[in-house]
Amino acid sequence: MFIDDTISAIATAPGEGGIGIIRLSGNKSIEIANKIFKPFYKNSIDDYSNRTLIYGNIFDGDSIIDEVLLAFMKGPNSYTAEDVIEINCHGGFISVKKILELTLKNGARLAEPGEFTKRAFLNGRIDLSQAEAVIDIINAKTEQSHIIAQNQLEGNLSKKIKELRFKLTEVLTQVEVAIDYPEEDIEFITYKELIEKTECIQKEIINMYKTADTGKIFREGLKTAILGKPNVGKSSLMNSILGENRAIVTDIPGTTRDVIEEFVNIKGIPLKIVDTAGIRDTDDIVEKIGVEKSKLHLKSSDLNLVVIDTSRELDDEDIEILQSVDKSKTIAILNKIDLKSKVDLKTIEKYIDEKNIISISALKNQGLELIHDRIEDMVFSGEISNTSDIMITNSRHKDAIYKAMTSINDALDSLGQQMSYDFIEVDLKDAWSSLGYINGDTVSEDLLDTIFSNFCIGK
Amino acid sequence: MFIDDTISAIATAPGEGGIGIIRLSGNKSIEIANKIFKPFYKNSIDDYSNRTLIYGNIFDGDSIIDEVLLAFMKGPNSYTAEDVIEINCHGGFISVKKILELTLKNGARLAEPGEFTKRAFLNGRIDLSQAEAVIDIINAKTEQSHIIAQNQLEGNLSKKIKELRFKLTEVLTQVEVAIDYPEEDIEFITYKELIEKTECIQKEIINMYKTADTGKIFREGLKTAILGKPNVGKSSLMNSILGENRAIVTDIPGTTRDVIEEFVNIKGIPLKIVDTAGIRDTDDIVEKIGVEKSKLHLKSSDLNLVVIDTSRELDDEDIEILQSVDKSKTIAILNKIDLKSKVDLKTIEKYIDEKNIISISALKNQGLELIHDRIEDMVFSGEISNTSDIMITNSRHKDAIYKAMTSINDALDSLGQQMSYDFIEVDLKDAWSSLGYINGDTVSEDLLDTIFSNFCIGK
Repeated sequence: MFIDDTISAIATAPGEGGIGIIRLSGNKSIEIANKIFKPFYKNSIDDYSNRTLIYGNIFDGDSIIDEVLLAFMKGPNSYTAEDVIEINCHGGFISVKKILELTLKNGARLAEPGEFTKRAFLNGRIDLSQAEAVIDIINAKTEQSHIIAQNQLEGNLSKKIKELRFKLTEVLTQVEVAIDYPEEDIEFITYKELIEKTECIQKEIINMYKTADTGKIFREGLKTAILGKPNVGKSSLMNSILGENRAIVTDIPGTTRDVIEEFVNIKGIPLKIVDTAGIRDTDDIVEKIGVEKSKLHLKSSDLNLVVIDTSRELDDEDIEILQSVDKSKTIAILNKIDLKSKVDLKTIEKYIDEKNIISISALKNQGLELIHDRIEDMVFSGEISNTSDIMITNSRHKDAIYKAMTSINDALDSLGQQMSYDFIEVDLKDAWSSLGYINGDTVSEDLLDTIFSNFCIGK
Repeated sequence: MFIDDTISAIATAPGEGGIGIIRLSGNKSIEIANKIFKPFYKNSIDDYSNRTLIYGNIFDGDSIIDEVLLAFMKGPNSYTAEDVIEINCHGGFISVKKILELTLKNGARLAEPGEFTKRAFLNGRIDLSQAEAVIDIINAKTEQSHIIAQNQLEGNLSKKIKELRFKLTEVLTQVEVAIDYPEEDIEFITYKELIEKTECIQKEIINMYKTADTGKIFREGLKTAILGKPNVGKSSLMNSILGENRAIVTDIPGTTRDVIEEFVNIKGIPLKIVDTAGIRDTDDIVEKIGVEKSKLHLKSSDLNLVVIDTSRELDDEDIEILQSVDKSKTIAILNKIDLKSKVDLKTIEKYIDEKNIISISALKNQGLELIHDRIEDMVFSGEISNTSDIMITNSRHKDAIYKAMTSINDALDSLGQQMSYDFIEVDLKDAWSSLGYINGDTVSEDLLDTIFSNFCIGK
């Protein structure tokens, strides 16, 4: 891998804030910075110690662009393991944009999304799963999501993968000995022993795989649709949920204008309430999600909240919605329990499990806690209790583990049938390679491009 | 002024970005930071030189919250002139929020908006007009706005005000001598001389005052309403303008949900197109701004763009709009000149000056440049040509200058009538005080609160 050019990007979130940062990485960082920066008290950046915040002005020719703090971090002790310059300027839009432009005019190239972290990976400072944790930390919507990502950044997943691959190598070595010296008088491993060792690895891989569904939810959010015919209280429910638990409005101006996702933090689980028509007019739009529109959401949702107004009798529209949902991922919410109920519970139970039917009053804020508990139960399914354990959150990792699992299963089949060691070797090697995708030992340039393109610019 | 507590806030813009900064200022900054931060290579922050970026972890008890770079800047050589700690962590929402919470748990108080800059002012590092320039730099929507604010931050306005106040003091001293020693044989200034000197000051103040209307536009944006009956091409026009010149969508999630302002950069002039119903549904909503809704906008707009479809004959609705606008701030835009014109120009000229009638085709992108030129002419009115001169951008400064101007005028009236020196002294002192409001020499606690409450948190 050949990295020669110096990249530059705005590293802080876009918007009005006190401080903005422009970051440069590469051989020419300091040369470029010296062209546009004059310290107040000394001549140039070279007159200061490494990693010192230097007070000075950014110049475009003779005119001062901004008063800044600049630091030079000499590689390999930097984020990218290359020479890095960070310029802390006034936040807002113009200063950061002007300074970025100046770095580009003076020899830097605009960094691609995630290119700083990609360089950290290519230069061997972190492995691929750690690099991926960086963006997960930035995107985390709840503290639990953050803890899982932080855990991955610290290298705990990497260690686990290394350990499993090491165990696989041990088994492989013994298999290869058996292949190479079939007639020698060497004490080689028996099928029984091989099966035992491989089963041990299989078990660990299966345990990791089991965490993936929950892990994905922590990373990407639980896609949630609030359904129900008009005027059953969907918007009141949504407001109650949002009011107390709103995490973040993810709203990136200028990109996707039609889809807005609102994240809500329910007991650490990030619920992603997707609203295709814009959250701004919540009242209107949630009501607009009627039977027709709902069908679109149903296809991709992880969780459906079907709201039913108990003060009115069930009608065909209610039934149609109840029929259309997947009961394994649906909670029926009987709203308006402060009023006299006209709903026949038995009918609802035909479609939804009893434990997933919850009575509330959105208006009086009664029963919301029951919904939270139920969601928590559904997500964890009693399988995972401690989010600080290693958890597979990334679909790419899940796929790799699935492939490794399949190869291990194949190897065990062959071992059970006492097939030739050559067959077994191929399967074990496949498993070893698949696990290598996770920490990036075996990974293609194309895949790297895909992974880092999901990063934000400047990271 | 007594500043004892240590404040903390997130200093970067909210949102997903590579880096987030938490900033502390006050006596206990380093003590608080040492409680939650462990460097990787040494024991504590005290083991490093001032202003060094220290690599380490933020801890909440035993668990790692994030990997960060931390710097300690000892006062008075810091932004606030107090001890400052800056923690650069991973961007996004959770890291910055968690670290902020940790600083608060360990003895810091959440900073109020602008409180860092307020402390810089209270500690005498910058004057009030420089402090105000900080938020103007952050909020700047075009490079010209940024240059003007940067100019003010550098202290050019402060210098000018100081100079004028010094000149006033000179005149005042001479007046006071005349009052104190009326019968002594001291050579004191004659009325004629006093008038000359005061007129000289008056001239400078008037020149500054003249820049205020244009200055305000650069600071706050030119409030622009696009008007016209349905289907005349308002949305096409808006899209043409936005497409090429979009500056920024100012959209702060969670605050004002009903009003969205879109800024467009026209030859360095920030046009603020206010859309009270949400810019998101541009097509719909711009069309919705019909005759009725427009009236609301008209009251507060600085510029009206009235769009007329030349392919249809003028009707009552067009006329009603033309009648309702203030012609001094209106451009009539005859759209669809690619089609055969059915509009009688004479009728439009009854309401709008000929030079302010511009023919375009929004569809074919023809004539937009003419609109830009016209807007530029209207804004500058031939009065101001160089935005790097001192410009009054802030209404507060404008008011202060207006008051000073009034007092100077009164003084000159009294001098003209050869009234008692005591009267003149009062007016000159008033002018001197009024100018002092600008750099903060004469300013109340309440006013400071108001000024800094317009800042963002963390600055």
